[in-house]
Amino acid sequence: MRLMRIGAPGNEIPVVEHGGAHHDLRPVAADIDGAFWDGGPDRVRAALAAGSLPLIDIAGRRVAAPIARPGAVICIGLNYVAHVAESGAQPPEHPVVFLKRPNTVGGPDDDVEIPEESVKTDWEVELGVVIGATAAYLDSPQEALTRVAGFVLVDDLSERTYQLEISGGQWSKGKSLRGFTPTGPVLVTPDELDHRDLRLRSLVNGQARQDSSTRDMIFGVGELIHDLSQYMEQEPGDLVITGTPEGVALSGRFPYLADGDTVEVEIQGLGRQRHRIVRRAGRGAEV
Amino acid sequence: MRLMRIGAPGNEIPVVEHGGAHHDLRPVAADIDGAFWDGGPDRVRAALAAGSLPLIDIAGRRVAAPIARPGAVICIGLNYVAHVAESGAQPPEHPVVFLKRPNTVGGPDDDVEIPEESVKTDWEVELGVVIGATAAYLDSPQEALTRVAGFVLVDDLSERTYQLEISGGQWSKGKSLRGFTPTGPVLVTPDELDHRDLRLRSLVNGQARQDSSTRDMIFGVGELIHDLSQYMEQEPGDLVITGTPEGVALSGRFPYLADGDTVEVEIQGLGRQRHRIVRRAGRGAEV
Repeated sequence: MRLMRIGAPGNEIPVVEHGGAHHDLRPVAADIDGAFWDGGPDRVRAALAAGSLPLIDIAGRRVAAPIARPGAVICIGLNYVAHVAESGAQPPEHPVVFLKRPNTVGGPDDDVEIPEESVKTDWEVELGVVIGATAAYLDSPQEALTRVAGFVLVDDLSERTYQLEISGGQWSKGKSLRGFTPTGPVLVTPDELDHRDLRLRSLVNGQARQDSSTRDMIFGVGELIHDLSQYMEQEPGDLVITGTPEGVALSGRFPYLADGDTVEVEIQGLGRQRHRIVRRAGRGAEV
Repeated sequence: MRLMRIGAPGNEIPVVEHGGAHHDLRPVAADIDGAFWDGGPDRVRAALAAGSLPLIDIAGRRVAAPIARPGAVICIGLNYVAHVAESGAQPPEHPVVFLKRPNTVGGPDDDVEIPEESVKTDWEVELGVVIGATAAYLDSPQEALTRVAGFVLVDDLSERTYQLEISGGQWSKGKSLRGFTPTGPVLVTPDELDHRDLRLRSLVNGQARQDSSTRDMIFGVGELIHDLSQYMEQEPGDLVITGTPEGVALSGRFPYLADGDTVEVEIQGLGRQRHRIVRRAGRGAEV
């Protein structure tokens, strides 16, 4: 199943992509939120089989994040060996976990505003995992995979000055600007996507940056959800983002993002994002 | 204004404490959540003046957190000089910021479950600030104070093994167990409380632990909200917890919390919490 949300912020319509067409899910789902995962996919399948969902033309409309605002955005750091090396760190023995504010989640193609004085905004393509059922004190990575509702493409945008230079070492400060987690365009359920070997790429102004595979993760999806469940209760609708591969600006190999730059990220089977970086206007210019 | 929420989890009733009695707020407020702060306090004042709110007897009923689950729990680390010293750290030049999961918020007197293998759960009494209006790119600490809806008492419970030993340095791992942010019993609006010199205390099994004043904060409330607003958009209903003073177990002066221990925390004008630490039963004992 391939789910989307279409429309202006605050008025998104849940949609299912099926047989090359898009169907309006409002007859069977208020939104693609935590509550949806309790029986929602079955209702969608039944409605598709019954032909009871109206078609919807999404051409020219805003593509939103395919999930409503999550209760938590849980982030895994340093989960690809080559990215660990370019960050000047050591491979972790345990997953490195931090949080982003849920109001960082935005549409895949929305403009992303950076602060007036920001000079170190960086891209990070990541595989996102949407939680479909409560995950607490799980027994195994295998059990953890039963809690996965679906996969999404995420750009874990990061302001490195805030994250690393004036943070006292806690990364969330550079990860929490509004819109800094472009998500989507589509959520794909696990029955339609094997997440273990997907190509991830990022480009800035059309030039290649990251190009790796999810098979290079240090901790796999099941291991991560299992590990997290030992010290936090993951809830339906939560978004877990699983770390980024090498090829970011922090490495020193590429310049940081500037006003007007276009970032594209993509993951095989999960579509592509294209968002523009827009520097916030100076305060003197405000009315 | 002194606000509370009373009742079982998921069925809390918003309440105002007024003239020594409690009044049911449901005629004028669905809950004390982000939406409440848009005109809610004025509706409460008008209803109190009109005498239109029914009395409610709260004796013997569960006291819940005085706010609905927030969109974000924003934490300030190392914000009291003596606590910085006992933690073996240096005073920060900029606020140190991390996040807790919003589902850590619990009632002030609810039992707190710790994992079976946890041996380093620690208490941290803190002044909590509830945000009443969007705070983004503010101009000054003075402007920031206009975004404060009220103050609450918080215990920022922390599992130090997860936070410091198997974390890779990111603290959220030891801060995010369910119920690890007991909040309340009461929310007090700024017109009724000067937050700048309040005594904060904690006790374990009746024995004194922390005993300081909010005047010892390195960064004050206005400075913190102003600083945060430069790199995250704080929203109505958010909870900002402003750091803890010296006297925690991490110092080595006191043992960590054990099964059956009782933690009490209090802040002058904001009431007292009393919660019991309960070790999660072994998995072998589960059905």
